[in-house]
Amino acid sequence: MTVNAKPMIATPQAMQFADVLHLQSGASLRDYTLAYETYGTLNADRSNVVLVCHALNASHHVAGVYADQTNSEGWWDNMIGPGKPVDTDHFFVIGVNNLGSCFGSTGPMHTHPDTGRVYGADFPVVTVEDWVNAQALLLDRLGITQLAAVLGGSLGGMQALSWTLQYPDRVRHAVVVASAPNLTAENIAFNEVARRAIVTDPDFHGGHFYQHGVVPQRGLRIARMVGHITYLSDDVMNEKFGRELRDAVVGSATGYKYSTQDVEFQIESYLRYQGDKFSEYFDANTYLLITRALDYFDPARTYGGNLSAAFARTAAKFLLVSFTTDWRFSPARSREMVQALVDNQRDVSYAEIDAPHGHDAFLLDDARYMNVVRSYFARISDELTTPPALAARTGGAA
Amino acid sequence: MTVNAKPMIATPQAMQFADVLHLQSGASLRDYTLAYETYGTLNADRSNVVLVCHALNASHHVAGVYADQTNSEGWWDNMIGPGKPVDTDHFFVIGVNNLGSCFGSTGPMHTHPDTGRVYGADFPVVTVEDWVNAQALLLDRLGITQLAAVLGGSLGGMQALSWTLQYPDRVRHAVVVASAPNLTAENIAFNEVARRAIVTDPDFHGGHFYQHGVVPQRGLRIARMVGHITYLSDDVMNEKFGRELRDAVVGSATGYKYSTQDVEFQIESYLRYQGDKFSEYFDANTYLLITRALDYFDPARTYGGNLSAAFARTAAKFLLVSFTTDWRFSPARSREMVQALVDNQRDVSYAEIDAPHGHDAFLLDDARYMNVVRSYFARISDELTTPPALAARTGGAA
Repeated sequence: MTVNAKPMIATPQAMQFADVLHLQSGASLRDYTLAYETYGTLNADRSNVVLVCHALNASHHVAGVYADQTNSEGWWDNMIGPGKPVDTDHFFVIGVNNLGSCFGSTGPMHTHPDTGRVYGADFPVVTVEDWVNAQALLLDRLGITQLAAVLGGSLGGMQALSWTLQYPDRVRHAVVVASAPNLTAENIAFNEVARRAIVTDPDFHGGHFYQHGVVPQRGLRIARMVGHITYLSDDVMNEKFGRELRDAVVGSATGYKYSTQDVEFQIESYLRYQGDKFSEYFDANTYLLITRALDYFDPARTYGGNLSAAFARTAAKFLLVSFTTDWRFSPARSREMVQALVDNQRDVSYAEIDAPHGHDAFLLDDARYMNVVRSYFARISDELTTPPALAARTGGAA
Repeated sequence: MTVNAKPMIATPQAMQFADVLHLQSGASLRDYTLAYETYGTLNADRSNVVLVCHALNASHHVAGVYADQTNSEGWWDNMIGPGKPVDTDHFFVIGVNNLGSCFGSTGPMHTHPDTGRVYGADFPVVTVEDWVNAQALLLDRLGITQLAAVLGGSLGGMQALSWTLQYPDRVRHAVVVASAPNLTAENIAFNEVARRAIVTDPDFHGGHFYQHGVVPQRGLRIARMVGHITYLSDDVMNEKFGRELRDAVVGSATGYKYSTQDVEFQIESYLRYQGDKFSEYFDANTYLLITRALDYFDPARTYGGNLSAAFARTAAKFLLVSFTTDWRFSPARSREMVQALVDNQRDVSYAEIDAPHGHDAFLLDDARYMNVVRSYFARISDELTTPPALAARTGGAA
């Protein structure tokens, strides 16, 4: 990008849905809103659509900036935009905020149409499958039958994967980055610590804290601190923070203040800052909902744990990407998915990127990672412009 | 052990110290008590003493049972006792409770002799080095000049290591299990999460909760849950708990209850139980002190981070043990110590045990691990009974 390149301007939009959405739990939602954004131009045959699914604390604001706000880059702005790996000069990209979020789509801080009261803890549990169903309804309303690609990282990758299982005919390509076919016991354990910190905060009030005029900030801080540790690798933490002190005591051999409650090490300062920041903008009920959606996702569950059997439904082509130092969703988890796709003779590309940044790597500017995604989307783009007959002939060699 | 073997009876003892103990922080303690236990018989030349140092939530009750209590086995009873790897038929074993603990030695819930009030958060910060100094004073009072061995796992291993640096002439062997020469940024990060959970619990009252008649149980629960995750390996968690539900809903495809606050998975139930139990017996200020002692330990710090330079002071022989799946104090950390000892031409044995249990493995009955420790202590025992002149001749081949 040259310095003078004009940033892409993003405009948030909202779509209202009056009809009942039946959820996996048996509960339902009605009169809900989905916040979304689009970038690029829909082509004549509506074949160039890329849906981007978001992870834990992200939103529909995937790329570009808001006209009236500085520092308002979308969360995947390095990946998506004109000339970027997912090139909005070729693709019509859609970002959707998931139900239960606190960034625009209907969530726990909105009003329950039946009771006229704020949902709070009464907001129904939503799953990855529910989100995908809601996204499909949005696409229906936008007149989009099929996606050129669905793309997501982490929890977003689970949604991309679920698209290929729930709507196999509507997805040509799925790009699943730093994701997993389900959570391990350790993953669930970290989520549970975060949830208990929130739920046991006296300011949580059983999830109805809004009417008490308080926010369970203590719990949110702890939740975010735990989360952040799992997003980074041990190596990158050592490299960025190591055992550096924030304010070493001058003239002391060790530099230590010898305090149990003050910040001593830089890593403590970093984590406290991340926790404080998060607790000021993120909704506690949303945090519970989103971590539970992660826990529940497990497409092989109803196939006796057999992922290959679960993947027999898929029809898409796949790109999977993992990062060597990601211990939250390790490369081994991506390889499980690759194997299950290969078992079904699916067209799957897999890149294991040697990157030091842990799980966070999926949001960062690693040149090899960006090139892998760029090449893959160039292939998808070629398919858009190649006459179908020719595509069918060359497709066999892909 | 045969079923009819009589258990070894342990008797807690206490030693009072009136003199001032100067601490690393510059603060001091006086009129303090150390709780300890001994097992086996001190030999005539007082050369068969093994000091066992404890980790986070353990105590001086290392082995045996209390005469009047069932299920009162010491925390390392599988390792220490008659005929066990550290054989009390040959060794006189001492367990000491560290200062700042909540299990008998002077700690935050005791009365400050200057003020007549409970210490609470005013209990001074204690370090590994302070604990070792206090242990040395206890040995002085028991008339013990030199240790046949000092032995510890995890934080206990740090104390064993520190003995060889602070009192090189008083330690013949050091056995350092599942330990590290300092904490990584990630280790500190987990400690900090635990501390923030405790300190921000409204029932903490700045560390003076005793006088309010409450205990920061919410914070202690979270602290323990976080800790437990780091004690276990991902593999053993998957094996023990996996994605098993506690009460699967009958007739549901997934078995899920679809709740953000109820226990759904077995791993959640396990962690909540561990947290609840811990919060009923462990002192919050002790937790802060002990995690800080972990954070601060770093013998290479005053040598510009050069562990080999720091270890030049050592004179002991070493056995180091690590466990392949321990991601808290990984084998790599033990290898750092081995390398630094080799750099100084020290006599060092190292065993990397292929065990699935993560950090907790150091407390468990792994046959290979037990055999390694048994063999090493048999060697130490041989040195006790071999005439010194012969020991000197055969020592070179060890």
